[in-house]
Amino acid sequence: MKHITDISELKTIINQYKSVGKSIGFVPTMGFLHEGHLTLADKASKENDIAVMSIFVNPAQFGPGEDFEAYPRDLERDTKLAENAGIDLLFTPSADSMYNCDPNVAVQVKRRTDVLCGRSREGHFDGVATVLTKFFNLIKPERAYFGLKDAQQVAVVDGLISDFFMDIELVGVDTVREEDGLAKSSRNVYLTEKERNEAPRLYKALQQGAELIRAGERNPEAVIKAAADIIGTTSGAIDYVELYSYPELTKQDKLEGKVILAAAVKFSKARLIDNIIIDIHEMERI
Amino acid sequence: MKHITDISELKTIINQYKSVGKSIGFVPTMGFLHEGHLTLADKASKENDIAVMSIFVNPAQFGPGEDFEAYPRDLERDTKLAENAGIDLLFTPSADSMYNCDPNVAVQVKRRTDVLCGRSREGHFDGVATVLTKFFNLIKPERAYFGLKDAQQVAVVDGLISDFFMDIELVGVDTVREEDGLAKSSRNVYLTEKERNEAPRLYKALQQGAELIRAGERNPEAVIKAAADIIGTTSGAIDYVELYSYPELTKQDKLEGKVILAAAVKFSKARLIDNIIIDIHEMERI
Repeated sequence: MKHITDISELKTIINQYKSVGKSIGFVPTMGFLHEGHLTLADKASKENDIAVMSIFVNPAQFGPGEDFEAYPRDLERDTKLAENAGIDLLFTPSADSMYNCDPNVAVQVKRRTDVLCGRSREGHFDGVATVLTKFFNLIKPERAYFGLKDAQQVAVVDGLISDFFMDIELVGVDTVREEDGLAKSSRNVYLTEKERNEAPRLYKALQQGAELIRAGERNPEAVIKAAADIIGTTSGAIDYVELYSYPELTKQDKLEGKVILAAAVKFSKARLIDNIIIDIHEMERI
Repeated sequence: MKHITDISELKTIINQYKSVGKSIGFVPTMGFLHEGHLTLADKASKENDIAVMSIFVNPAQFGPGEDFEAYPRDLERDTKLAENAGIDLLFTPSADSMYNCDPNVAVQVKRRTDVLCGRSREGHFDGVATVLTKFFNLIKPERAYFGLKDAQQVAVVDGLISDFFMDIELVGVDTVREEDGLAKSSRNVYLTEKERNEAPRLYKALQQGAELIRAGERNPEAVIKAAADIIGTTSGAIDYVELYSYPELTKQDKLEGKVILAAAVKFSKARLIDNIIIDIHEMERI
């Protein structure tokens, strides 16, 4: 695995790959890799000639209350994990090289941000879209890999790619789960034993909502209530249970097309999120 | 010359060019072509395997007071002119195909806009940068050609390309002038005979300013005053005479590096702009 920090060096290597027709799969990360990232890396490696991973804790996507400095970093461990997961090129630029001290331009995300987790993270997705635009232009991937655990991020990236006519296939990869259904997350270790036992109910609640839709329910409030009732049996506090069209993330009066049922729950020391995406057209065709 | 309006058809052709290693030169325009555009087209054609011109009156770069509907259009004439100037592919998409009715993202220009003409055109350069990002991603040019008559636009595009790491060479092309020095413009026909006789003093004033700098003057106010004094001898009203670093467009206390001296003058029925870019380092080396 090549490890590059310098932008000019990256450009040279990417242009070499391109000139001989190699396809590139790109996995953007902020490092501190877990199984979710490695699943993306593995998929990128299998579906492309070259798999590129970036590790970059992006200052622009941290809000004032969010601690950029305290974000966990472990490059040595990440390097080994990335290599084992099939990454060919690891790119870890400095913040100074990615951003002018006085930025001339930024991407502004106008939709899909004022719901779910985005509601309380103003400017977060502008930072995500801006840094991804930079990475996409530098790395020129055929495919970019994102975990569907953060389905709102995938929706925003879909808007970015389609509005700006970027020639990139967005690959949303299913959430990796524990055997009992709990979505894997580095935050799960902060759960007490009792909370850990209750936490799988979050996914069970989403599955129950999906089951109702499969059975013919088209009223979003009924689905939300059924899911919320199950989550309500845990000791966690519901932050939100919401149901939208996907990837547009707009409210529907009557469910149709592709929809997302998503929830966030606050336990004593960890806030867990999860979601399920249901394609009603697909379901009706079967 | 190929003439394409459909985006998928454009993508197919561009990918064909790219797959056989053709270099692409791109000239974005809003049509109603004049000699300035044709100079860009000619240069793009000479310096690249394929010269692509877009004609697109971009709604997003017109402000509320500016009449998008009334902007002059003559596609039949433009088509002939483009072909004669060496354009290989003319792209004239519809506004509907370039923009979602509900845009997800836009480029926000944060610098270089609150001076010169940009000061009175809020949002204009956001619209320019957004549509260019789309065109650049669709057309994938090695080089993009812009007239230095609109030097502020060139500065903004420079910021866009460099901040977002777009792999495009920005080619700023010198202003085409009448024999007496007046910058060519479709607006010159609106000048009265008296005004037309006075109008060359605009460029003379800028040349005089440049001459002062060449002679050692480093105080921007002195240079501005000298230029303004000459423009003041015309019957036009000075809109601005300004002097900045280029392409950053920031004020300097003491002139150094590359600078731009620019002016706008309102005659009875036409507002003329012109500028001159002076490289002081270059000058000092000679």
